[in-house]
Parts: sequence; structure tokens; C-alpha cells
Amino acid sequence: MSRVERWERRAEWPLLAAALVFLAAYAIPIANPDLSAGVVRACSVVVLATWVAFGVDYLGRLLLSEDRATFVRRNVFDLAVLVLPMLRPLRLIRFVTLLSVLNRNSSRGLRGRVVVYVVAGTSLLVLCGALAVTDAERGAPEANIRNVGDGLWWALSTMTTVGYGDRYPTTTTGRFVAGALMLGGIALLGVVTATLASWLVERVAEAGESERAATHAQVEALTAEVRALRAELADRPGQSPRGPE
Amino acid sequence: MSRVERWERRAEWPLLAAALVFLAAYAIPIANPDLSAGVVRACSVVVLATWVAFGVDYLGRLLLSEDRATFVRRNVFDLAVLVLPMLRPLRLIRFVTLLSVLNRNSSRGLRGRVVVYVVAGTSLLVLCGALAVTDAERGAPEANIRNVGDGLWWALSTMTTVGYGDRYPTTTTGRFVAGALMLGGIALLGVVTATLASWLVERVAEAGESERAATHAQVEALTAEVRALRAELADRPGQSPRGPE
Amino acid sequence: MSRVERWERRAEWPLLAAALVFLAAYAIPIANPDLSAGVVRACSVVVLATWVAFGVDYLGRLLLSEDRATFVRRNVFDLAVLVLPMLRPLRLIRFVTLLSVLNRNSSRGLRGRVVVYVVAGTSLLVLCGALAVTDAERGAPEANIRNVGDGLWWALSTMTTVGYGDRYPTTTTGRFVAGALMLGGIALLGVVTATLASWLVERVAEAGESERAATHAQVEALTAEVRALRAELADRPGQSPRGPE
Amino acid sequence: MSRVERWERRAEWPLLAAALVFLAAYAIPIANPDLSAGVVRACSVVVLATWVAFGVDYLGRLLLSEDRATFVRRNVFDLAVLVLPMLRPLRLIRFVTLLSVLNRNSSRGLRGRVVVYVVAGTSLLVLCGALAVTDAERGAPEANIRNVGDGLWWALSTMTTVGYGDRYPTTTTGRFVAGALMLGGIALLGVVTATLASWLVERVAEAGESERAATHAQVEALTAEVRALRAELADRPGQSPRGPE
Repeated sequence: MSRVERWERRAEWPLLAAALVFLAAYAIPIANPDLSAGVVRACSVVVLATWVAFGVDYLGRLLLSEDRATFVRRNVFDLAVLVLPMLRPLRLIRFVTLLSVLNRNSSRGLRGRVVVYVVAGTSLLVLCGALAVTDAERGAPEANIRNVGDGLWWALSTMTTVGYGDRYPTTTTGRFVAGALMLGGIALLGVVTATLASWLVERVAEAGESERAATHAQVEALTAEVRALRAELADRPGQSPRGPE
Repeated sequence: MSRVERWERRAEWPLLAAALVFLAAYAIPIANPDLSAGVVRACSVVVLATWVAFGVDYLGRLLLSEDRATFVRRNVFDLAVLVLPMLRPLRLIRFVTLLSVLNRNSSRGLRGRVVVYVVAGTSLLVLCGALAVTDAERGAPEANIRNVGDGLWWALSTMTTVGYGDRYPTTTTGRFVAGALMLGGIALLGVVTATLASWLVERVAEAGESERAATHAQVEALTAEVRALRAELADRPGQSPRGPE
Repeated sequence: MSRVERWERRAEWPLLAAALVFLAAYAIPIANPDLSAGVVRACSVVVLATWVAFGVDYLGRLLLSEDRATFVRRNVFDLAVLVLPMLRPLRLIRFVTLLSVLNRNSSRGLRGRVVVYVVAGTSLLVLCGALAVTDAERGAPEANIRNVGDGLWWALSTMTTVGYGDRYPTTTTGRFVAGALMLGGIALLGVVTATLASWLVERVAEAGESERAATHAQVEALTAEVRALRAELADRPGQSPRGPE
Repeated sequence: MSRVERWERRAEWPLLAAALVFLAAYAIPIANPDLSAGVVRACSVVVLATWVAFGVDYLGRLLLSEDRATFVRRNVFDLAVLVLPMLRPLRLIRFVTLLSVLNRNSSRGLRGRVVVYVVAGTSLLVLCGALAVTDAERGAPEANIRNVGDGLWWALSTMTTVGYGDRYPTTTTGRFVAGALMLGGIALLGVVTATLASWLVERVAEAGESERAATHAQVEALTAEVRALRAELADRPGQSPRGPE
């Protein structure tokens, strides 16, 4: 295990904690617009602290990696999120990448892991999308998403591609958040359908057991049988002109 | 057959009847807002009676089961529906679980059963969603779903993810019902597509009959043939140095 | 070929012509609300005439069939459309069943035929849905679908499950038409996706040619080879104790 | 390589450049409605020049082709786009056909190429749809899509089949553009789902490695083994009555 991998393994849980703290400090002022200025400032400080934590993690991995140019090239997304702190909604994307913790050392099969990713990723995307759009829309004069409840309702109806139109973003930032949720919705539909199709194809194939395909192992066993027969014949008195293989 | 299974088998039809009576007693006051107070009270009594029937069923199964802790753990959903009687829409979910009666002793293949589940489950979800949302919205001041007709129309356009936005829930309960219908719609799309894909993959494979895969049984027959040959050779005068297998 | 089949074969093209005439006579008064009363009456007469033609076809098939009870049971849908002439939109469904003419004697593969059905069925459903909804909505006081152009636009946005909500039906008949289009849209999405998935699964399998599955024919050839070997050995001087198979 | 193919290969990059210049000259007046008349006229000239370039390409291919009647029949779409210059949005379709340049000499597998097509084709369709709808709607009195930002937002919510209904086309041209985007959205959903399903079916099959199917090559090797055995037996002293195969 390289030094970078050791760092990443040790940093995993602290980073997850930092991300949850960040989510709370990000969500509280959005959910409670009437907070006193002091609490809002405290939340900003906490957000800044988690930002520093992620920066330290990035620097640590960069310094420990053997080939730093490759590291920068492969983690360009991490760098972008770090150095573009004005893109507040973007920082929430970090959570999706942290989903991998959920699936570490999992004993589930491939489809089981896909289901965990879909449920967790969708919930997180709806939650983060609701927070981000409420944050972006609240100040706008013609906005119709004015609290986190509206934001959650809008995020759910967008993600499922229902789109009633009773709530919709009016600011440019809100529209970008909507775009992310829409693409997430397309992906959600695709993953749900593909998982069901894969499961159904497999079950239907199993039902037709009498038509079960010949396996690789089965043909290999047969080949061994034929080879044994040939070897036996070669050892007999009535000798073959060619020797055994 | 264990005692719990015997109980479940005998309770199946009474429970289905109780569920249908519950649906009727739940639907009548929602569909007719101008009923006399007496009829509404009678419906409440019937709803209570069906609730008691489900409670008796739960208790009976609990007492008859060999490992009660396991039983409680495995039927936590049944318990939740029983002890949370304020979650009126939730009680309608019970119907979906009763769908299994429809498919008992079925001679259909896997895909046929999936089709039955989809058609029955979708109809039931639209019906129950329409009732629940009408119940939740009727009292709200800004509501636009005011009778069961509106509710059915809204439920259908939500479940198919069309979402015109001429009708939409405004209360929190109504939005939760909407969420259930949206997720049901995603599942509906997924199941329809997956069933079609599975059917099409199979039909296309059958069309290419000349490329039919070698079957397990076929290779087993061939292996028996080779073994017979080897046995025959071993029995011959010009003896093999090794004996027959 | 039974007498019913002969009738059906001969009636096919006249019925298709009758259906097209019906569509025209049905569409003209809907598309032109300001027609003189005489033209509208002429269209009604033509609609009635095509209805008679379908009735004659039904009676003819009924009289020629060997088992009339079975015939009625199997064609209950045809009968319903005939005796429920007030269900005007329903009569348009007949077109979908006539699609089979398009695919008769087709040299296309299964997926090619699916594509033809999807394109023709979708176009027909959008067209008929637009006509039916315009017919149903025009008279309603709060309707927002007032001409065939609006109807087509609404039908397209419903079928694709986009559902802007700038146009939507307000009458019960219109909402039933919408339901048919929504379910058609779900089916459209499902068929498009399933056809693509089936095509992609096949192409990806072909790409891995070196992993091509063993075919049934291939193993049969091998079995014949082994049988020939066994027969040759049995014919040899050093006789086997058991005779040839 | 025929002369037409040589022409097409040399014309590829110039045509791509012409298409990009066309897109810019088409987009600039739409995005900036307050441009001076001179700039607008310059853009028109550039659009005309690119139109001439595509005409020269068509004529060149026509003259070089061996069978001109076949060429015209096979490229009827190219001809239609050339001679119908009033169908401005249609000309943007050309870009989709130019996507093939992206995938030339690609080392990706089939699914990788599908992903490239989907991402590039979807982005291009949203961009071109937004430009075309803004161009069509701007002049309409009741239009609600008034600048390219609105157009992009509308195109995205249409393509993903969300369809809020806060923005929608009111002109006939705009509705045709919407139809193209809706069908594109259905296709997008289908391709995403099919690609995921194909990938998942393959991965699940690989996971069950012990059940790996017998390969064609494997059975061929076994057949060769049996043939060798038969040949050896035929060459032996205790001769077979039939000669070697």
C-alpha cells in the first residue's frame, strides 16, 4: 500500500465527518432565514474550517504522491471545487464522491451495490439540490421557491421528471442546480430500469434451466476425458506410430 | 407447514375482504363531502373495525410464531402501519402487499406475473393516491384538488411523470402522497421497459436459432458417450495398463 | 384456410379504406368548426356508413366462424366498439389494430418490425388523440385546447411525458383521452429503450467474437465424430465384449 | 478508395469549419437582438457563404459519383436541407451528422462511442434547439422565450421531459423545434438506459465466472483432439476396416 493510499484510508472518516459538519453549517442558515447574525457568522466559520480541512487533505495527498503531475491531472475536479469557493452548490457534489464509504467492504453483489448507490445518491442529490436552489432563489424578486420545504418539493418533482411547474427556479444559479437534478433524474430512471432489466434477464434465463448453457468447466472436463483415453491407447501393446502427446 | 403458515393461509381471504371494506369505508366520505354526520361516523366505525381485524391478525401471528423476536423484526412494517393510525394514507399501502393473492397458484411465467403486478399495483396506487390526496387537500385554502375526479386525474398525470401542473398538492401530506406516486411512476417506467427488453432479448436470441448455444445437457450426453468408449476399450483383449475408471 | 380467414383476407383492404374514410369524415368537422351544416351532416352520414361497414364485417365473420360462442368471446373488444357508438374516441382505436397490414409479408427482422409499429402507432395515437381531445374540449367553457393545432401540440407533449401544462384537458372525456396518451407514452419510452438495449446487448456480444459461445450444431458435430470413432473400434479385430451401439 | 470517398475525406475538416462558422453567424444575431444592421447583414452573408460551401460539396460529390441516380436517392436529406433554405432550424441538423468526425479512428469500444455520441449529440441538440426556438419566438406577441438564456433553460427542461411550463413555444415553428427536442429526449433516455443495462448485464455475467459459457474455440480444440485420436487408431496394426477420414 502506497503512502497516498494510507493517507486516504486514515482521512476517510475525518473527511466524512467534515462533510457532514459542512452540510449542517451550510443547511442551517438556509433553513432558518431569521437567524441572528452571530449564528450565521458562526456557520460561515465552520464552512470555512471544513473547506480548510479539504484543502489540507488535497495538499497532503499531493505531497505524498510519487508522480505529482499525474496526481494533479487525475484530481482536477477536486482542485476545481477547492479553488472555486464561490460555486457554493458545487461543493455539495463532494458528498456523492463520499458515497463510496457506504459500499466499502460490502458483501453485496453488483446489483445490490447499484441499489445502495441509487438510493443514497438520489436522496443526497434531492437534499443538496433543495438547499442549493433555496439559497439561490430566496433573494430573487420573482422567485417562487422561498423555503426549504418548497425546495425539497421542487427537487423531488424535478428529479422524477414530473415538473409540475408550480415551483421553478428563476435565477441562473437555480437553473444550473435544476440542470444537475434533471440529468440526475435521467440517470436515476436509467439505473432503475437497467437494474430491473438485468435482474429479469437473469431470472428468465434461470427459469429455462433445461436450456442451460454448456459451461466452460464442463467442456474442459470432457477434454480431459478424451486426453486420458488417448493416453491409454498410446500405452497399449498395439502401439500407435506417434507417441503420446 | 408451521402454525403461523396455517394461520396466514386461513386469514388470507378474510383479510382481503377486510381490506376491501376498509377501502370502501375510507373512500365513501372522501368521494361524498356532503354526507350526513351519521354516515361519516358509521364509516369511521367500519375503518376502526378493519383496523382491529388487522391488529388481531398481527397478534395471532405473533403468538403462534416460534421465535417472536425474529417475527417482530421481520414484520416491522406491519407493526408501524398498525400503531401509527394517524398516517391514514399509509394504511392504503397494505393493499399492495395483498396483491400477492392475485398471483397465488399462478400458472403464468415470470414475465406474466410481473405484468399482473404492474397493472394491479399501478391501478391501486393511482386509486389510493387519488383518495389520499383528495382527503389531504380538500381542507386547504389554496388547494386545487377538490374532488376525487381531480384527484384521479392528478394521480394519473403524476404517475406517468407528465405533470401538467394544472393540479398539484399544496399541503405537506399531499406532497408526501405525490412523492410516493412519483417514485411509483419511476418504478412503473422501469418495470415496463425491463419486461419489454427481457422479452425482446429472448425473441431475438430465438430468431438466431442456427446460432443456438450449446446446452449443458448436450455436453453431458457427449461426455457419457466418451466414457462408454473408454470403458469398452478397457474391456478389450489388448489391455490398457491402467484399469477402467 | 378456414372460411373466416378467407373473409378476413378479402376484407382487409376494404376495411383499411373504410377506416381512412372514417378518419377523414371524423377529422374534417373537428378541424373546421365553421363548416356549413350540410357538410357536417354529410360527414356524419359517411361516419355512419363506415360504422355499418365494420358491423357487416363483424357479422360476416361471426356467421362464417365454426364456433360462434368462442368467436364472440375472443372479439369482445370489436363488439364493444360497435355497440358503443357514443364512445367516439374509442372508435379511433381501430386504427391501431389495422397497423398489422403495414407489417404483413415483411422481410424485416423482429426489431425492424418493432420500429415500424412504434413509428406508425405513435403517429396514429398522437393524431387520433389530438382529434378526440379537440372534439371533446371545444365546447367546454374553460377549455384551453380550441383547435386541432393546439390538440396536436398537447398530444405530442403528453405522449413524450413532457407535459408543459400550457394546454390540458378539462372535460372527463378529454381526461380519458389524456390517460390513453400517457399510457401510450410510457409504452413508447419502454419500447424505444428495450429495442436499443436489445440491439446493444447483441452488438457488444458480437464484438467479443473470441468469446463466442459454443453452438448447439458444433457440439452435435463433435458427438457424431465420437460415435464414428466408437463404431470403428467395434468393427476391429480385437473385438469389444459389447457390440456396437 | 473511390473518387467520392477521397473528396469526402478531404472535405471533412473544411466542412466542419464551415459548420462552426455557420453556427457562430447564426447564433450571434439571435443572442444579441440589438446589433447594428451592418453586423446582422455581415452575419447573413457568412451564413450564405457557408450555404454555398455545402452546395459545392454536394455538387462535387454528385459529379464524382459513379451512379448519380443512386447518389441523389441516398442523399435526399442533404438535398432537402440545401434547397429549403427557409427551414432555418433544419440546417442545424447538419451538425448531428458531423458528429461522426468525433468518433473517427476511435480506440473506444462500442459503448464508449455510444457515450460520446450521446453527450455530444445532446449538448448540440440543446444548443441548436435553444437558438432555433429563440429565433422563432422572439417576434411573437405572447411569447415567453425572449432571449437565449430562456431558450437554453427551456430546451434543457424539454429534453429531459421535465417540462415545467414556465416557458413554452407559442409559434408553429417553435412547436416543431419542441417536437424535435422531445423526441431527442425520448431517445436520450432510451440510450442512457440501454447502455447501462448492457453494461450491467455484462458485469453480472462476468461475476458468475464459474458459470462461464463454453466458447466456440474451446469446442473446436476438443474436436481436433478427438480427430487426432481417430487418426492414430486408424494408423495402428489392428487395422480399422474403414480408412482414416
